[in-house]
Amino acid sequence: MKYKLITSYDGTNYSGWQVQDHQVSIQGKIEESLATIIRQKVRVIGSGRTDTGVHALEQTAHFTSENPLSTSKVLRSLNSLLPHDIRILSIEEADPDFHAQYSAHNKTYYYHLHLDPVANPFTYKYRHQVKYPLNLDMLREGAQLFIGTHDFTTFANKAYQGSAARNPVRTIFRIDAIEEEGGVRLEFQGNGFLYKMVRNITGTLLEVARGKLPPTAIPKLLKAKDRQLAPMVAPARGLFLAKVSYD
Amino acid sequence: MKYKLITSYDGTNYSGWQVQDHQVSIQGKIEESLATIIRQKVRVIGSGRTDTGVHALEQTAHFTSENPLSTSKVLRSLNSLLPHDIRILSIEEADPDFHAQYSAHNKTYYYHLHLDPVANPFTYKYRHQVKYPLNLDMLREGAQLFIGTHDFTTFANKAYQGSAARNPVRTIFRIDAIEEEGGVRLEFQGNGFLYKMVRNITGTLLEVARGKLPPTAIPKLLKAKDRQLAPMVAPARGLFLAKVSYD
Repeated sequence: MKYKLITSYDGTNYSGWQVQDHQVSIQGKIEESLATIIRQKVRVIGSGRTDTGVHALEQTAHFTSENPLSTSKVLRSLNSLLPHDIRILSIEEADPDFHAQYSAHNKTYYYHLHLDPVANPFTYKYRHQVKYPLNLDMLREGAQLFIGTHDFTTFANKAYQGSAARNPVRTIFRIDAIEEEGGVRLEFQGNGFLYKMVRNITGTLLEVARGKLPPTAIPKLLKAKDRQLAPMVAPARGLFLAKVSYD
Repeated sequence: MKYKLITSYDGTNYSGWQVQDHQVSIQGKIEESLATIIRQKVRVIGSGRTDTGVHALEQTAHFTSENPLSTSKVLRSLNSLLPHDIRILSIEEADPDFHAQYSAHNKTYYYHLHLDPVANPFTYKYRHQVKYPLNLDMLREGAQLFIGTHDFTTFANKAYQGSAARNPVRTIFRIDAIEEEGGVRLEFQGNGFLYKMVRNITGTLLEVARGKLPPTAIPKLLKAKDRQLAPMVAPARGLFLAKVSYD
């Protein structure tokens, strides 16, 4: 029996989604608790990795159980076993051919920028504090130049470029800059994102918004297909996987 | 020279506002950093204590400096020395007779109740998760019975009743229950609150809202002036000192 699970987590204290030797991962924590409850070894496949320190409002995953489960009971048991910074929002039965990664149609990420000169003691783990003035019109102008289908090699970090034959072409549907208390939230929606791509694009948009890089540089950077040319990556703390959409 | 300071803090990792032996307090942290900056021993007097684990959106305090200060420089230096969970929002010169505690006219506290069955990994340190159904109409009916000037002995914990001759009469101007994402925020405004009074009233309102205590019990409880009769105190994590108002 296949099940689809939606989880929300504060990534601050984890080495990221994916199980890795000698590190505490979100996938590892969920697999460990789930195995205790359903009494079998179980692999929980996410829609994709989130990196060290990156958060999720809604990460989707699937797993297979040898026996049929009471989803409401497993949901309650998981939330009582898991640490407070990982919550399971829902579990439901899924089609046998559902796959959290391969069935995903599009993903939404949020990147939160804190623009007030004084940080907020309740949100500093979830915001990148920007200490220089930003021109939001310039930021929006730059953002539009990423929309569409491109080879995003310049904006993908090596770890995944190394995993051979990964197609670097992705389509971004929208990047919106929405003002919120204390700053701005960048909303990215696309059919998929390469390793550190949202954080690399955010880093570049910050350079544009502070007047250090003209927006016209963006098409050239895309064309160059060279990570070395892109500005600094934005820190993990501001990034949230907001939603994974399926058919 | 006298200065007025506004601070916001996440109380999770502190023993409360007030300096106490062998404990890490918010007052102690601010005094320590301020002393380093202005190079004198300094006492920072708050509008009142907040208890272990209680938070503040805006706590007001004052201090006296031997020499005149550049408030903007001291503000920046304090925020760079203090831990991320304590922020100084502003510092300004104050009248010589300003006193953070005695000049305060009224205070606003928020108490956040999380009502969704699943907790939120980003706010669980700032919400009291209520796992039984609440009748908000009943809660509001009960809240109205606390409004006005009363002897609040029944709703004050002993620590302060002990500190002799403290007048237990206070005036509550309003208690509003405002729906917010995931739950309800209780807003308390009054001319002052006794030790644990907001948490004791919240605990009683929860009993009313779950149908275990009729609202008509509230005037009787007030009249009895006996802490032993009041229901359980609500936990610290949901409580915020929201604002202290002066003339």
